[in-house]
Amino acid sequence: MFQLLTRVKELEAQGKKITRFEIGDSALGVPPHVIEATKKALDEQKTHYVQSQGIPELREAICELTEKTYGFRPSIDQVMIMPANGIIDAVVRCVANAKEEVILPDPGFPTYGAVLNYTGITGVPYKQYEGKERMYIDPKEIESRISPRTRLVILNSPNNPTGFVATENEVRDVYDIAKKNDVYLLSDEVYSKTIYDGAHYSPAVFDECKERTIILHSFSKAYAMSGWRLGYAIGPVDVIQKMTLLFETIYSCVPPFVQYGGIAALNEHPEYFEHYWDMLKESRDLLVKNLNTLPGVSCLVPAGAIYAFANIMKTGLTSQRFATLMLEQANVSLLPGTNFGKNGEGYVRLCYARTLETIQEGCDKMKAIITDGSIYETI
Amino acid sequence: MFQLLTRVKELEAQGKKITRFEIGDSALGVPPHVIEATKKALDEQKTHYVQSQGIPELREAICELTEKTYGFRPSIDQVMIMPANGIIDAVVRCVANAKEEVILPDPGFPTYGAVLNYTGITGVPYKQYEGKERMYIDPKEIESRISPRTRLVILNSPNNPTGFVATENEVRDVYDIAKKNDVYLLSDEVYSKTIYDGAHYSPAVFDECKERTIILHSFSKAYAMSGWRLGYAIGPVDVIQKMTLLFETIYSCVPPFVQYGGIAALNEHPEYFEHYWDMLKESRDLLVKNLNTLPGVSCLVPAGAIYAFANIMKTGLTSQRFATLMLEQANVSLLPGTNFGKNGEGYVRLCYARTLETIQEGCDKMKAIITDGSIYETI
Repeated sequence: MFQLLTRVKELEAQGKKITRFEIGDSALGVPPHVIEATKKALDEQKTHYVQSQGIPELREAICELTEKTYGFRPSIDQVMIMPANGIIDAVVRCVANAKEEVILPDPGFPTYGAVLNYTGITGVPYKQYEGKERMYIDPKEIESRISPRTRLVILNSPNNPTGFVATENEVRDVYDIAKKNDVYLLSDEVYSKTIYDGAHYSPAVFDECKERTIILHSFSKAYAMSGWRLGYAIGPVDVIQKMTLLFETIYSCVPPFVQYGGIAALNEHPEYFEHYWDMLKESRDLLVKNLNTLPGVSCLVPAGAIYAFANIMKTGLTSQRFATLMLEQANVSLLPGTNFGKNGEGYVRLCYARTLETIQEGCDKMKAIITDGSIYETI
Repeated sequence: MFQLLTRVKELEAQGKKITRFEIGDSALGVPPHVIEATKKALDEQKTHYVQSQGIPELREAICELTEKTYGFRPSIDQVMIMPANGIIDAVVRCVANAKEEVILPDPGFPTYGAVLNYTGITGVPYKQYEGKERMYIDPKEIESRISPRTRLVILNSPNNPTGFVATENEVRDVYDIAKKNDVYLLSDEVYSKTIYDGAHYSPAVFDECKERTIILHSFSKAYAMSGWRLGYAIGPVDVIQKMTLLFETIYSCVPPFVQYGGIAALNEHPEYFEHYWDMLKESRDLLVKNLNTLPGVSCLVPAGAIYAFANIMKTGLTSQRFATLMLEQANVSLLPGTNFGKNGEGYVRLCYARTLETIQEGCDKMKAIITDGSIYETI
């Protein structure tokens, strides 16, 4: 994805105006109270090394938030602060060894597979299916992927890139499979705040993250703090201790002033983002409506996250080719579904955390090169 | 080390005043121009994702600094921004595979060995010897450690924890060995600004980081920016590209506002730290003089870095026991040499980036429990 970002920046440097749907970054600014808290911490020289597991004040704030939103209060020892992508790497390295297996969604967030490549652990994919109304998973398929070498199952609801949101039954089934087979369960919940219809269900409620469930949260999506590299994990104490040791070795700690920004995000102005979720829903609806008017393209209404995952099979183009043509000809950047696994072939991902104007403009540009046929001439 | 830090914080919470020599963090505050540049970047909302390799402005500033200090100008593609500890992890993972070998100093910075543990790569140590006047290495010993599985040699001058600074001949010999055997050379130069007598020599001048040399720098020590987790590597383009891909996968990028702070550190007020180096030298001299008055303790004058590495063999205590007793009885925190490898047995490390008052106070407390014999009663 970041290679595409480099090409986008090249085109922009040439004076091209690129309508950018590729990156899961928000058009929204960071809330002023977060900026102020961070600046205050800098002024107070909160810039030295701190505990690798995270400063206690932020971990306490997370315990409180968890009690409010999940109905259970983890101990402070169950919580660690780390960039969210790094948590995926740390969980995998701490619960599995080379030649063991991790079961993961495909399409799914690319970091799941990438960290496995670096560790010699085998990724075993399970699908998400395109139903009439929603994307869904088949827990029986997950169960069939379990082997004696399985150490971890990854669940991501809401899912990036598909927008799939697991039902209460789906979540319970996945948890039961993990329990029955005594494997860990990483529940990536970084998009749990962006669910437009229905509720968020987490397997964490079954074991309060004491036995096998590790939940992963990020400030990037929930508080528009993408470049801050701030996230947290809640899990069994022994796993969190191992992860902390790994993080200490490789990064020492998250900068303290960044963590103070995080405290402000959690504790101050909880109303700040409410309007934003409403805006996102409007953006989603506009994008999906427009995508469904493009010849050869169809798109389910995603129940959660911030992406539309459009089916482009009827265009006859591969995902990669479609994305390249959109960037080079229409100056619209989006990601091929294959960036998210081989089951992403035939799809492209567009982030709709954009203004309505941007969405309309991008869709118009795409429509122009599809309907006038110029996209096909260059195949 | 961070476990000891936790114990220190416990004792402090109990109201004990701990004289702290354990952590390589500076008593110095971050320069105001760095704080201001970071706050300005926050105000300008430079808080979104940026290039994984680092923002071009900072990489350009590093190219310029390198030209001034090393006499060659790397291309911007040879430079990447990352936390310095993470660079060690990334270099190792990008140039070696499981069951291959990395030759590293013992005693040495613990991260070298730790990242190997996580990757299944074998660490092959070489010693530093305590001479009459200085610590030294034996390049012939390094050469004898080379095998067909060797992929990387790590040189760290000035060395943490010993204060060893390589002579021009030692550096050239190590480079020649790496070249003759066609292996990579990681030159960890994070302490290159803290050399009190003589000059800093780098193997980078032999290949301009184009063939095999990767140099590693950190803002933590050079600009008192310890908690910022900001460092950089200069190396062959293919290695830097692989490292960037790994970093993109696990951390995406260093927060942009942190990078803007780094630009200010490099470009503004170069005189800011000059006084600091003089202070450090005075602190070093006071600490070493005092250590040499402790019964059973002797200490060479370290040529570089910010640590005294005291020989405690004649106390009859192990390094770990000595450190524990100092913390619990004298309320002085320091690190056992064995934290830095098995050749660290018989030594302890004290960071002298402290005020003269702190150094005198800590030494007096240590002297009291050694000379009154109470340290031996509890063995």
